[in-house]
Amino acid sequence: MPESPYPMIPVDEAIAIILREVHPLPAQSLPFTEAAGCVLAEPVRADDPLPPFPASTVDGYALIAADHGPRRIVGDQMAGYVAGMRLSAGEAARVTTGAPVPSGADAVVMVEDTQEQDGLLTVNASLSAGDNIRPVGSDIAAGETVLEKGTLLRAAEIGLLATVGRAVVRVHPRPRVGVMSTGDEVVEPGQPLQPGQIRDANRYALMEAVRQAGGIPVDLGIVRDREDALARTIERGLAEADALLTSGGVSMGQLDLVKPYLARHGVLHFGRIRAKPGKPLTFGLLRGKPFFALPGNPVSALVTFEVFVRPALRQMAGHADLHHPRRPVTLAHAVRHHPDRTEFQRAIITPRADGTLTAATTGGQQSSRLLSLRGANGLLILPHSQGDFPAGAQVEAMLFDCL
Amino acid sequence: MPESPYPMIPVDEAIAIILREVHPLPAQSLPFTEAAGCVLAEPVRADDPLPPFPASTVDGYALIAADHGPRRIVGDQMAGYVAGMRLSAGEAARVTTGAPVPSGADAVVMVEDTQEQDGLLTVNASLSAGDNIRPVGSDIAAGETVLEKGTLLRAAEIGLLATVGRAVVRVHPRPRVGVMSTGDEVVEPGQPLQPGQIRDANRYALMEAVRQAGGIPVDLGIVRDREDALARTIERGLAEADALLTSGGVSMGQLDLVKPYLARHGVLHFGRIRAKPGKPLTFGLLRGKPFFALPGNPVSALVTFEVFVRPALRQMAGHADLHHPRRPVTLAHAVRHHPDRTEFQRAIITPRADGTLTAATTGGQQSSRLLSLRGANGLLILPHSQGDFPAGAQVEAMLFDCL
Repeated sequence: MPESPYPMIPVDEAIAIILREVHPLPAQSLPFTEAAGCVLAEPVRADDPLPPFPASTVDGYALIAADHGPRRIVGDQMAGYVAGMRLSAGEAARVTTGAPVPSGADAVVMVEDTQEQDGLLTVNASLSAGDNIRPVGSDIAAGETVLEKGTLLRAAEIGLLATVGRAVVRVHPRPRVGVMSTGDEVVEPGQPLQPGQIRDANRYALMEAVRQAGGIPVDLGIVRDREDALARTIERGLAEADALLTSGGVSMGQLDLVKPYLARHGVLHFGRIRAKPGKPLTFGLLRGKPFFALPGNPVSALVTFEVFVRPALRQMAGHADLHHPRRPVTLAHAVRHHPDRTEFQRAIITPRADGTLTAATTGGQQSSRLLSLRGANGLLILPHSQGDFPAGAQVEAMLFDCL
Repeated sequence: MPESPYPMIPVDEAIAIILREVHPLPAQSLPFTEAAGCVLAEPVRADDPLPPFPASTVDGYALIAADHGPRRIVGDQMAGYVAGMRLSAGEAARVTTGAPVPSGADAVVMVEDTQEQDGLLTVNASLSAGDNIRPVGSDIAAGETVLEKGTLLRAAEIGLLATVGRAVVRVHPRPRVGVMSTGDEVVEPGQPLQPGQIRDANRYALMEAVRQAGGIPVDLGIVRDREDALARTIERGLAEADALLTSGGVSMGQLDLVKPYLARHGVLHFGRIRAKPGKPLTFGLLRGKPFFALPGNPVSALVTFEVFVRPALRQMAGHADLHHPRRPVTLAHAVRHHPDRTEFQRAIITPRADGTLTAATTGGQQSSRLLSLRGANGLLILPHSQGDFPAGAQVEAMLFDCL
């Protein structure tokens, strides 16, 4: 039997092809309360200044700094309205934090620094004009751009949208990703196992990985090893999702249907990569939508997701920052590696007191052994064209978590 | 007027009090598909071994390694069932990746290393017993504990639950957190501003921060500065949520109702902390549920959330790892600091080539200036009892993102 007809391409070339073919989803208008986690597709400006009025930063008394002696208290200015009073020399008004400072006043004195008796205020502090007042526009000027196009909307940015009254914003939507598993041996986790069967781990793991990457998973179920079943599920996926993800069915057997389907009905960009795990990774476009066929081994599926699929989903969502961060790490033990391809070993990466990182692998690295991902917070990236690494060697790692 | 009656306690003491008073929520049984992001409240064991049968790792032919010469092909063993054949000396069977290896066979040869003609198989590779076979239980042994109590369920762990057929698991639920804003000056972001009013940024920012911390926000709306309105909203929050969060209404003015309410109806544990921003931070228990009253300035509200509230929510969710990671950073410029309290300055922290981190602040650090949080990926922690820091000094930082 011949070798696979698909040339084995390097990891970096595969990533470059994916990012060349995948594009940000068209912008949509969303209520700002539903836009968290999305990327802005327009800049956001403030129409009004903030604060919109000179505001007291403390509970106390508004007055004129240059006055001397006790002040006569002429009224109250609470937050939420404008009392419309005007202070003259020798007068003061009670104010609360966030309240407008009455016109005529040029400072506020903290309540702790005063005494009030019989309508007269004694000040026990030296005062300067401007004390404890936020001038109009001191936090945000009218017309100022508060958020640039391309900004990821998180808690502070959602607060800024609320602050400037921007109730609807243009954002790139989260990509909807159809996820299916393929194989006659695969059954739902709740069902009893018959001889020769295994439970479907990949679909559930990948749907959660999609969620973690900011996408919305669309469950396309388990597809049996028949072309009509595959075609039906793919049609449903193309109708409901922006991208498709399969796992299994991508090596060389008689029943591997996915690659030929993609080549016949769409554009197959690559069908093998020089990586371990991940060799049979396949990428193409079906009616313009990205289609990833991931290996069937659960570790291979999750590792190729993080390295190849997540950046594509982030590009679709409009992010500029696509990849998990890469950092140099020092190996805590020797690591064996064949130089014929790039290898991603699952690792536990730990910061040292000086801020640098040390890494230990998670035991047996068989691509079927999902336990090797348990507790892993990163991947060692062992380059092709270089062999074994001794303990203490420095290699590059991809980090999944903050360290 | 007297000083505040609430003693100002150090930051570390405030965190210790919170974590002493807050407890993990009781475990619940959830479908594993809804348990992602939760912490396991029980260990999970595998009932069956994985693989449950000796499985081929390649597409090829099952055979007996010690045989010589061409083998006679006696059948097919695809994935998903057990064909029930038994190989004798000189025989081979076609197998696909993931298929059970027929009994009698002790190795599988890859299809690439073979030629098949007229029902006879020629092997062009040297073979050893065990080649390309995953033995029963080689990934997971029957009875093995695959996930310990306390494990955070992410994509790989969800895959492990599916693998072992654990369709329902005991986990700590996500905490439901009631979020309200207080103040007569605060209006909804979609409404036009009247004189003296500002838009409610805090409630929306905090609800998103709750979500990011793994909690479920419950929107309790804006509460006016009247005790009956506050009491009604708090009652609703206690009925619907596991913890309560207010912002605003915690300084010293005539209208600050929250602290007295908490002291009268529950247990007030502290009412001021030695921090900037965050001085008026208030924490207590109402009918056993944690109640946080955060400062009204939007920066103060979000900073105190990340430093004090998020660890509490994570403890409620059963996490062992409660805090954002802290790492040493080198200051890119001089930073002014008064030694009277702990100061959290918003910063942009960047890794250098050697893996260490450098930090620059985000400009004006007024606690009303939400723009100082835009783009910040961490907080400098400037300790009390120490003054200004020169450029190049090393300080501790709390990191929000992976670096």
